[in-house]
Amino acid sequence: MESVIKRSFTEDIINQIKTIDVATLVFLVDHSVWAHYSKIFDIYNNFKGKNIILWKAIDGEKVKNYREYESCMEFLLEKGIQRNSHIIAIGGGALSDFAGFVAATILRGISWSVIPTSLLSMVDAGIGGKVAINSAHGKNLVGAFHYPNHIWINTDFLETLPEEEMNNGKGEILKYCFLDKEIYEDVCKEVQMSEIILKCARYKEEITSQDFKEKGMRKYLNFGHTLGHAIEKHYTIAHGQSVILGIALILFLEKRDDLILELKKLTGLLNIKLPEIPWLNRKFPLDQIMEYVKKDKKSVSTTEIEIITVKNIGSPEIKLRTFDDVENVLGSRLDELRKFSL
Amino acid sequence: MESVIKRSFTEDIINQIKTIDVATLVFLVDHSVWAHYSKIFDIYNNFKGKNIILWKAIDGEKVKNYREYESCMEFLLEKGIQRNSHIIAIGGGALSDFAGFVAATILRGISWSVIPTSLLSMVDAGIGGKVAINSAHGKNLVGAFHYPNHIWINTDFLETLPEEEMNNGKGEILKYCFLDKEIYEDVCKEVQMSEIILKCARYKEEITSQDFKEKGMRKYLNFGHTLGHAIEKHYTIAHGQSVILGIALILFLEKRDDLILELKKLTGLLNIKLPEIPWLNRKFPLDQIMEYVKKDKKSVSTTEIEIITVKNIGSPEIKLRTFDDVENVLGSRLDELRKFSL
Repeated sequence: MESVIKRSFTEDIINQIKTIDVATLVFLVDHSVWAHYSKIFDIYNNFKGKNIILWKAIDGEKVKNYREYESCMEFLLEKGIQRNSHIIAIGGGALSDFAGFVAATILRGISWSVIPTSLLSMVDAGIGGKVAINSAHGKNLVGAFHYPNHIWINTDFLETLPEEEMNNGKGEILKYCFLDKEIYEDVCKEVQMSEIILKCARYKEEITSQDFKEKGMRKYLNFGHTLGHAIEKHYTIAHGQSVILGIALILFLEKRDDLILELKKLTGLLNIKLPEIPWLNRKFPLDQIMEYVKKDKKSVSTTEIEIITVKNIGSPEIKLRTFDDVENVLGSRLDELRKFSL
Repeated sequence: MESVIKRSFTEDIINQIKTIDVATLVFLVDHSVWAHYSKIFDIYNNFKGKNIILWKAIDGEKVKNYREYESCMEFLLEKGIQRNSHIIAIGGGALSDFAGFVAATILRGISWSVIPTSLLSMVDAGIGGKVAINSAHGKNLVGAFHYPNHIWINTDFLETLPEEEMNNGKGEILKYCFLDKEIYEDVCKEVQMSEIILKCARYKEEITSQDFKEKGMRKYLNFGHTLGHAIEKHYTIAHGQSVILGIALILFLEKRDDLILELKKLTGLLNIKLPEIPWLNRKFPLDQIMEYVKKDKKSVSTTEIEIITVKNIGSPEIKLRTFDDVENVLGSRLDELRKFSL
């Protein structure tokens, strides 16, 4: 249950796809990505002799809903997708989440591979087999675990990526800095970005392949995400910025000013604009945030949640805390929160 | 990856559910089954101290579509289902297929158990972890593999089962007679029905737990089903009758008049009304049947299909045949087919 993660140029990727032994290749692509890259992939020419099914997704997160899921599933079934067809997802994290869920559930699951085109999907979304669409009650609540066979990372795709999208990915890289000392040090040494990306991808792959069903250390990867998702949902802020805020809040909850300093240093090194604090000089929306947290699928029961934190750079840990505890600690420091800035 | 299959009376089932260590029990029940049995299960009294979520499905196969799937998923998420909640499916095969797909995909998969209430689900649908909803292009094309933890078989439920439903289950039992000599002999000896049911369930469980992802011998269980499903779809005939016709057609294709005689004998012993042949004295709808067969998810490629047949009672085998071959053999015997009866 491991994906092969490789850095490859598009030409290599095409050659490797040619060697996949199936009669039918199914391309699920992000519409706007495809506008840039359909000529480069030139699928009808490059994969002559194979049946090609192509489905273009509406851009970004919008595709991750029941309607688009049905629409894609029915399209592929109509076109005659078969058990030994192979799905290739080309796009960002939303597209790969979506395509992976289609791959996981069509004909009870067929094989698939990912060509991530956003930074976020290179270091996070494409890796580890977590695939999903969204519910009205939260992101990624409808999904499965379904490993891609191949993940081909071509950082050339980042050249056309909008700045906000780059920031979303960098938010995750920042997270890896807290989880893994080697990545932290690489960022401090300002090692080449494409090297750091590959290290993040392989770190995630290693963690997830050892812990496929998210029983143990895979949970580390949620560092900053429980509160981050709540913030993302409440304020409709970009994912990368929400993760940074989520990390900041956890460190605030844990009273780790030393690590908040690290957070600031790393955002500088990664050239991420620090997020504005949406609740600065306002009331922190504790009730609403707690409501999201309670509905988070990582809640282990109706009263408790596992909080991911770090003892030190490179040493993540899992703490079980009651909702009441989280609410009380945040509630008792609302004045500090109102003034909290990064 | 094995389910525990037990014969239990309802009181035992309730006691065993009480021992499941979760805060939330989620009951997904067939509406008409629940009209009969809600008082017996008395869930709010029997499981006091646990959170109870109850969702009633519209009856039978109608529930297995995208709309009901979304509706059920969103209902459960709204009610606060969590990763360590446990889903209990109470109903026939359609309900357990549906509930299992919900269990497989909600929060990326949570645990579940089945209380099958129809004969078909006792011997077939509830067992083996194949869960699905239907596509406009065919049954069960949208699904997953997700083993239930427990399957509690209480044959008392069969008392209220309509005759057609009984026949649907008996069609599957007939299938098991061809696959397993012990079941064949039990039916010949007219052993008690509840014994035969348990043997069928355990036979399927054994096969499927050894072959979870349907790579090898699990395919035996499709005996009669490829053509059966095509017939079921084309003529809208009940599943049990379609399976018998599917078996008959396979044996016809294989020119096994000896086994067609066994088929007739067994339908008598099992007290199944032999199906009328819908194409008797009419043109056999070869083109349409082949079209369904080609879209069957068991098609291994765009040109071939694996046909399940039996060398003898108890000795199933898998043969790879091209669509052209199947079409030619049936096409060359259209006159015989027009007169074929059981």
